[in-house]
Amino acid sequence: MKELTPPVRLLMGPGPSNVSYRVLRAMSTPIIGHLDPEFIRIMDDVCQMLRDTFLTKNLLTFPVSGTGSAGLEAAMVNLLEPGDKAVICVHGVFGQRLTEVARRYGAQVINVEATWGQPIDINQLIDTLKANPDAKLCAIVHAETSTGVRQPLEELGAYLRDKSTLFVVDAVTSLGGIPVKVDEWGIDCCYSGTQKCLSVPPGLSPITFSDKAMAVIAARKTKVQNWYLDVTLLQKYWGNSERVYHHTAPITMIFGIYEGLRIIAQEGLENRWARHQRVSDILCQGLTELGFTFFAQEGYRLPELIAVFPPVADQVEPLRKRLLNEYNIEVGAGLGPVAGKIWRIGLMGETCEPRSVSRLLDALRRLL
Amino acid sequence: MKELTPPVRLLMGPGPSNVSYRVLRAMSTPIIGHLDPEFIRIMDDVCQMLRDTFLTKNLLTFPVSGTGSAGLEAAMVNLLEPGDKAVICVHGVFGQRLTEVARRYGAQVINVEATWGQPIDINQLIDTLKANPDAKLCAIVHAETSTGVRQPLEELGAYLRDKSTLFVVDAVTSLGGIPVKVDEWGIDCCYSGTQKCLSVPPGLSPITFSDKAMAVIAARKTKVQNWYLDVTLLQKYWGNSERVYHHTAPITMIFGIYEGLRIIAQEGLENRWARHQRVSDILCQGLTELGFTFFAQEGYRLPELIAVFPPVADQVEPLRKRLLNEYNIEVGAGLGPVAGKIWRIGLMGETCEPRSVSRLLDALRRLL
Repeated sequence: MKELTPPVRLLMGPGPSNVSYRVLRAMSTPIIGHLDPEFIRIMDDVCQMLRDTFLTKNLLTFPVSGTGSAGLEAAMVNLLEPGDKAVICVHGVFGQRLTEVARRYGAQVINVEATWGQPIDINQLIDTLKANPDAKLCAIVHAETSTGVRQPLEELGAYLRDKSTLFVVDAVTSLGGIPVKVDEWGIDCCYSGTQKCLSVPPGLSPITFSDKAMAVIAARKTKVQNWYLDVTLLQKYWGNSERVYHHTAPITMIFGIYEGLRIIAQEGLENRWARHQRVSDILCQGLTELGFTFFAQEGYRLPELIAVFPPVADQVEPLRKRLLNEYNIEVGAGLGPVAGKIWRIGLMGETCEPRSVSRLLDALRRLL
Repeated sequence: MKELTPPVRLLMGPGPSNVSYRVLRAMSTPIIGHLDPEFIRIMDDVCQMLRDTFLTKNLLTFPVSGTGSAGLEAAMVNLLEPGDKAVICVHGVFGQRLTEVARRYGAQVINVEATWGQPIDINQLIDTLKANPDAKLCAIVHAETSTGVRQPLEELGAYLRDKSTLFVVDAVTSLGGIPVKVDEWGIDCCYSGTQKCLSVPPGLSPITFSDKAMAVIAARKTKVQNWYLDVTLLQKYWGNSERVYHHTAPITMIFGIYEGLRIIAQEGLENRWARHQRVSDILCQGLTELGFTFFAQEGYRLPELIAVFPPVADQVEPLRKRLLNEYNIEVGAGLGPVAGKIWRIGLMGETCEPRSVSRLLDALRRLL
């Protein structure tokens, strides 16, 4: 089998984003054991840096040993028992996925939907929650990777704060790119992925559970149906006391997230959010000048994931392939109802720099 | 947060093992997208090299995006439906784990047990299978990481070959260290982990399903209860045709296993098995000379994981800690009934070289 020599790409798709040489270097560190006291110290540091990034004091805050979808599944399987009612918002692929996963574990799902490209109507959602005060949780996607929509969460958090219904947020594409304020917004369970605005390779899903969520899990009548993602077991390994072996932690990925979170701490969260907005504004202006139009509703557009209609409706996919093959720039294809119609342009983490914007706009000028 | 500077350890525990600089270098390669045509090619090469390592022609052979325990769970959740009968052998921690996972998914488990340190009695097992011809599967651990026992599989495979009961093998600690002959032995589902004899960091679980197993999965009456590990979805991404997005593959880990499997192909499986036996024989002789005695029954000892009673019964754990702290050598502690009584010494993959043996024996001579 031949040597591994993949091309060098500018990753402007919906994730993964480009990874800093510092993270790659950390991941080439010789590994140590998953129960080594020195590794336990590194785990503790990762958990603390994740708390700082999620803006939470939640004790159980750690990276699930799987990609973002494993975090999504961890949220659902730990919080829901068969027969539980769940209110799940759907305004793109990831709300659909939440629904599918919750149903597999036997939950009774009530969907609140919005057209793709629009946010969930908060009044409609709160009406549904009022009609279903016994719902175990309400789950919503903060940054819909399939549509580029930013979903406001403050009002929903304020409504749910004194209710028994848990507030679950998918922050896969938002954490590290736009504000995600777990404690301030009253979020009970929030998960993300490493390969988006954290700019660490895919393979881990940071997750955090509030005390309210942990109390619900502690009061379960049935065992968590998924052993690998069972936080009642995982907290004994990641938590602060026992350090009981559950599964072998993905050491190299933990080294990677350690360095990635360190980079975020050094930049500062507020600076990082401002950078994402600033660079995105430059790109959006350039795209507008080239005749691109935007898919997501104005006022609800994510800076880090820009869904656009290219000015050549019959060349959407061929042009995307030429960008990859001729310019080594990856942008994402549309999914579901907008497959073949839109591009999803990512400006996440390490990718989110003016140099990426210049390179993409120049390539587009040549191709169009 | 301070710079990441873990100590450099000789990893002679039950895994992870040391990782070749070649694998670490591959893992520091800038990443590409998980749907990039160049990445698809790398995935195909990884699947083919895994088939060569499992000695199988099974089409669905790929690395699960989680550690070995995720592979174990993938085997159980895809093959079992609620109410199904499963014969599961228990002669250590990992047979217990198989039982626990199968029960969580609603299976009716019949255990066949052996005392820790001994293999499963094949006659007793076959009697149990004869009494339960309707068992959906029979699962057994090939290399029990908790005891150092090698479980012979040929006779069991021959018995099950023309039965409807599927033959499931946990090869987490055997693949790449001792012969694992999936097709020749008639194994229907076999899973492993990267961090043992493959000498790749933890984070992936290679798995393979026979056509017979896939037919059973295709005939399921219920959806697989675990979305992340559902092979009816995963085969559309890893299989040879559609390449439908399921979850973002852990790119860097895939780069790592690519290089790790390439190293194995270059060494040759037979040479690799012979190396494990040869180096292990040298270590075992040295340990015997120092007064160590063996936990696993003679004739059933794994070369790559040697469970021993140290000659100082009251210093088992303190001595292990001194090895780590004073000599940077990790050996594993005992689990369950032999916690605090044995060490588990790993000689896996990259670690399995005479230089490791020399270093360990010299340290032990000084400490004892």
